[in-house]
Amino acid sequence: LKVEIITVGDEVIFGHIVDTNAAFLANAVYSLGAKVTRIISVGDDVAAISEVLREATSRADLIIVTGGLGSTPDDLTSQAAAQAFGRRFALHKGYLESIREKFQGWDLKFTPSSERQAMLPEGAQPLPNPIGICGFKLEEAGKTLFFLPGVPREVEKITEGVLLPFLRERIRGKEVIRASLLKIFGPTETGVKELLQDLEGDYELAYLPSFPEIHLRLVVRGADEADVEARKKRYEEGIRKKLGIHLFGKDDEVLEGVVGELLKEKGMTISVAESCTGGLVAHRITEIPGSSDYFLGGVVVYSNQAKEELLGVPRHILERFGPVSRQTAEFMARGVRRLNRTTLALATTGIAGPTGGTPETPVGRVFIALAAQDEVKVRKYDFFGDRHQIKLMASEVTLDMVRRYLLTL
Amino acid sequence: LKVEIITVGDEVIFGHIVDTNAAFLANAVYSLGAKVTRIISVGDDVAAISEVLREATSRADLIIVTGGLGSTPDDLTSQAAAQAFGRRFALHKGYLESIREKFQGWDLKFTPSSERQAMLPEGAQPLPNPIGICGFKLEEAGKTLFFLPGVPREVEKITEGVLLPFLRERIRGKEVIRASLLKIFGPTETGVKELLQDLEGDYELAYLPSFPEIHLRLVVRGADEADVEARKKRYEEGIRKKLGIHLFGKDDEVLEGVVGELLKEKGMTISVAESCTGGLVAHRITEIPGSSDYFLGGVVVYSNQAKEELLGVPRHILERFGPVSRQTAEFMARGVRRLNRTTLALATTGIAGPTGGTPETPVGRVFIALAAQDEVKVRKYDFFGDRHQIKLMASEVTLDMVRRYLLTL
Repeated sequence: LKVEIITVGDEVIFGHIVDTNAAFLANAVYSLGAKVTRIISVGDDVAAISEVLREATSRADLIIVTGGLGSTPDDLTSQAAAQAFGRRFALHKGYLESIREKFQGWDLKFTPSSERQAMLPEGAQPLPNPIGICGFKLEEAGKTLFFLPGVPREVEKITEGVLLPFLRERIRGKEVIRASLLKIFGPTETGVKELLQDLEGDYELAYLPSFPEIHLRLVVRGADEADVEARKKRYEEGIRKKLGIHLFGKDDEVLEGVVGELLKEKGMTISVAESCTGGLVAHRITEIPGSSDYFLGGVVVYSNQAKEELLGVPRHILERFGPVSRQTAEFMARGVRRLNRTTLALATTGIAGPTGGTPETPVGRVFIALAAQDEVKVRKYDFFGDRHQIKLMASEVTLDMVRRYLLTL
Repeated sequence: LKVEIITVGDEVIFGHIVDTNAAFLANAVYSLGAKVTRIISVGDDVAAISEVLREATSRADLIIVTGGLGSTPDDLTSQAAAQAFGRRFALHKGYLESIREKFQGWDLKFTPSSERQAMLPEGAQPLPNPIGICGFKLEEAGKTLFFLPGVPREVEKITEGVLLPFLRERIRGKEVIRASLLKIFGPTETGVKELLQDLEGDYELAYLPSFPEIHLRLVVRGADEADVEARKKRYEEGIRKKLGIHLFGKDDEVLEGVVGELLKEKGMTISVAESCTGGLVAHRITEIPGSSDYFLGGVVVYSNQAKEELLGVPRHILERFGPVSRQTAEFMARGVRRLNRTTLALATTGIAGPTGGTPETPVGRVFIALAAQDEVKVRKYDFFGDRHQIKLMASEVTLDMVRRYLLTL
């Protein structure tokens, strides 16, 4: 089953937005074992859209189109589809009715421009879209075309509800493909390759740098589902064994979520004191639903005064060793742990740049501390990159430090 | 000048990464007034790559290709280019020498696989790449093809150093196009359209939703540079007048940077107390280089205990009105302002969800407070979306609240 993806919109070909829909759809198709052979983006132009629709339909079996289905004059995809395949472009009565009902349900005024969305190529079948208006399916010369709106959340909903079931049905009985994403933090890509060099088996492994992590895509193919699943499990276990603690998660798991799960498992709480990461560690921890169960609080202490008054870092420590030092990091972690009465506490202090560096304490120098009941670990790092990268890397190392600590308990 | 962009890589067509190179290149081309008519992605496959190279060269005047130039066996773009245009695929001696020198300079070992990168289609001209290895230019049937590596930072460097100068040279004397991006927060897209409906002039205006902001792309075209610049300035002023305070920035400006500039201008400092935003407001403020001049500190207070002990929110207030209330927000803002001795202070408290909502205080309810010397403003909001969207929206409203306040001083 050859699949092509077409994204329509001036905002894409003028580079005003990054095309996340294409990546989402490609990944959904790929995860079922079908192959996306081409992704094409064109602007809001009837001739250009209908040209790529015809070309893609001549090459692929399934064509997924997103964008250009709204109610404004530059939404031209439906019209271009009618033109591409020589079909009448007409009002779809049933579709119009369903749009009217949706507007009523949402308490929105139905205007003539809303009616425009019910104009479809003859033979189009509207798709269920639980959170929006548009979407339809078209059969042409034995090929299937799905037309989805451009709003990412609607693309996701229709993909789940309609597109994936369609693909599963079509792919059944063909080659079985199972893939998983393994997430690593710690070693470099070369280091991961060395660790895995003796791993044997019939699988594909792709390295996907995902700063500051390394993501490995494991793909296993075969004719029999049970065999493929069993082999995938075996290879995953093999990789897990070779990578050990460096492998932190799989598929949708994120580092801050893994840390959260470990804290819940151990019945522990945590707090953070941030200088150079400026709130990013707390922000990441609190992105996880339910984090209020284990995350009790954080402080962002940019000034020496705040480090002293809020966290009790002694003035003589700040004066003697400086705010970016092993000693200050240790007192910060102890201080925020005491303040929030948590089992564990984390602290970061460093120079995120681009200014503020000195020969002794260059931009990128960061101390990270983890305080527990009876010990404080402090590590020193020198990170590269711009302000954003240094903050991100420091937050990653901080979260990973507590993950590794929790796994030793 | 018609331009097409081709990105090569399995990681793109399998949806493992989002194609930011295409957006970056499209935007760079667009900003000079040339038109990208198509963006195509294909996988690491010689036949597929050479097919799209031939097709694109038949349609466009300039083709920009990224990816597939590295030293691993799945880097096939150079070979595909040779095949597409019937050229010999051979070792480029001068290029090899320059690669060898770079490896020496970086203190890296030169291996046979590194040599592979010096294999180019006959007639290719290597491009200067200050931070990496690869990149070359090819002329074919009067068309120009640029081949860039896939690493985003290298794409940016080569674009700046070689591609943009080439484009400027080619476009000179043709139509002059000037564009700017105007950033708005406050009204809905419909609201912005209504405010701008009487605006007259010869320009194009595109709406680019950029949650939670609205971005407007203003494009002005003409034959004469001075005239185009003058008109652009006039339309910008016209838009600025109609949108007033809702327009917060232009081009590269971001809301947290605008707030920082205003604080520096007024010589003021700020601190934040966050509950539902969980550190995101502090993180955004501290993404700006030099923010330590005006940002003194923040606290993330998830528990009632932290709100009480750290910020001095009275227990009877927390018990009577609850942690998500106008009164708690006000005490939080006052408390963090006192704690950090800042001119201004911000506070957020709300339910980011997906759990924790009640009929009286549903998911999405957020109170945001701004404390100054002699007044505290508190606003109540009901936001929609998932946890991430509610945090993002709340952080945006918080930053915008202080921006609007500073503009009234």
